[in-house]
Amino acid sequence: MVKSVAIIGSGNVATHLAKAIYKAGVEIKYVYSPTLANCSALANQVNATAVDNIDCISDVDLIVIAIKDNAIKGIVERLRDKDSIVVHTSGGINIDVFDGCVTKCGVLYPLQTFSKEREIDFTKVPLFIEANNSNVFDDLEIFAKRLSENVIEANSQKRKVMHVAAVFACNFVNHCYDISSQILEKEGLPFSTLLPLIEETTKKISEITPHEAQTGPAQRGDSIVMNSHLEMIDSPQIKEIYKLLSKSITDSYKK
Amino acid sequence: MVKSVAIIGSGNVATHLAKAIYKAGVEIKYVYSPTLANCSALANQVNATAVDNIDCISDVDLIVIAIKDNAIKGIVERLRDKDSIVVHTSGGINIDVFDGCVTKCGVLYPLQTFSKEREIDFTKVPLFIEANNSNVFDDLEIFAKRLSENVIEANSQKRKVMHVAAVFACNFVNHCYDISSQILEKEGLPFSTLLPLIEETTKKISEITPHEAQTGPAQRGDSIVMNSHLEMIDSPQIKEIYKLLSKSITDSYKK
Repeated sequence: MVKSVAIIGSGNVATHLAKAIYKAGVEIKYVYSPTLANCSALANQVNATAVDNIDCISDVDLIVIAIKDNAIKGIVERLRDKDSIVVHTSGGINIDVFDGCVTKCGVLYPLQTFSKEREIDFTKVPLFIEANNSNVFDDLEIFAKRLSENVIEANSQKRKVMHVAAVFACNFVNHCYDISSQILEKEGLPFSTLLPLIEETTKKISEITPHEAQTGPAQRGDSIVMNSHLEMIDSPQIKEIYKLLSKSITDSYKK
Repeated sequence: MVKSVAIIGSGNVATHLAKAIYKAGVEIKYVYSPTLANCSALANQVNATAVDNIDCISDVDLIVIAIKDNAIKGIVERLRDKDSIVVHTSGGINIDVFDGCVTKCGVLYPLQTFSKEREIDFTKVPLFIEANNSNVFDDLEIFAKRLSENVIEANSQKRKVMHVAAVFACNFVNHCYDISSQILEKEGLPFSTLLPLIEETTKKISEITPHEAQTGPAQRGDSIVMNSHLEMIDSPQIKEIYKLLSKSITDSYKK
């Protein structure tokens, strides 16, 4: 049973996860970052000790690595002698990143977009868990269920598919909003005018499938409107995006 | 003052607009469609007469053309002798579509995605209005304000920009959801798992700009994750979309 935790990292995921763990009543002993200034604020919020030396971490049941994907391997190697369960929180990194370094390991992947400025109801965040043996899995599952109502077992392959899907449903969607706001800004139009449309677009797909919900000139195959839109877009890159996404929509309704 | 209306069309926009007009207490005399079966259901709902002959439309203050963009010009030509105000509801069609045919004309463009199955609170839908003279504009403005709290004057150019922005914020966003659901379906994973993420992605941008809200591998410039995602995508077209959108995100954070 996990009774004490150390958090490696102080970014968006580390912050939201640490707060959720703290709120669930599990002790957070340490928050580690190579720069003390970066982790002190978070450590204070969750009543933990801020450390900039990873060797200071001892006597915890669970170490949570919540850092950039490409830095995980390096940290894992520095945790070689620890007896704790060690997990990372990445959607895209295989559990085999722990091979040869850590004996009790797993993954705890929260499927959400975290920004420091925004509060999140963590109990609603889907948590994907994986472990290298059934004892670790059991401990991790009990722990995860204290944080969220929605705990799902997923191996590395499944988690990666989920992550790719999330890139489309969150990162690319947000980029479409960003392009949209740039287009309006040029004409001095407020982005907020789009919010009722955006809200409805989102609501729809909790009731009907995205394929049924599709509307617009590409879905109707209305090339006159699409061409007139293309004439209005200055940026070659945004033009390219308009063409490619429109073609993909039109193609998917021809089938 | 607009006291009676005829609706040309029986699709999504026609249906939602007719219901909003009826609810606002304005009389709808006719609903026209070339096929009677198509407009009878709508006509019944709003206590109007269904007609399949456009010449039957008479004695109304306002005729609303809510049909496909490429059919508007043809209808306008058949309304040559009418004394009513005639408006279309398209984001992308210029007001000059009425030139030489109709003397009192304008545009009433509702910025929303309409599906027949879903009820909409029309009072929250932004309505963009334009007219060919100030008298018509005044009548149209009073009428529009009975339907929505959010009436905005916009010339054809401004409206078209709004429409392009809406294609990105609604149609392309929805297509990203669709791709996402296809990716999950292949692995037997439920799309509903993404809904908390999608909801948060949408909520964020009502508080911070989409540019500030961006997260994910492309924003971090994490090419290892992006390459591993590309390996998992079978469809060459979806691969292309992943590459292009990722590059566009990465580029916009280099600036």
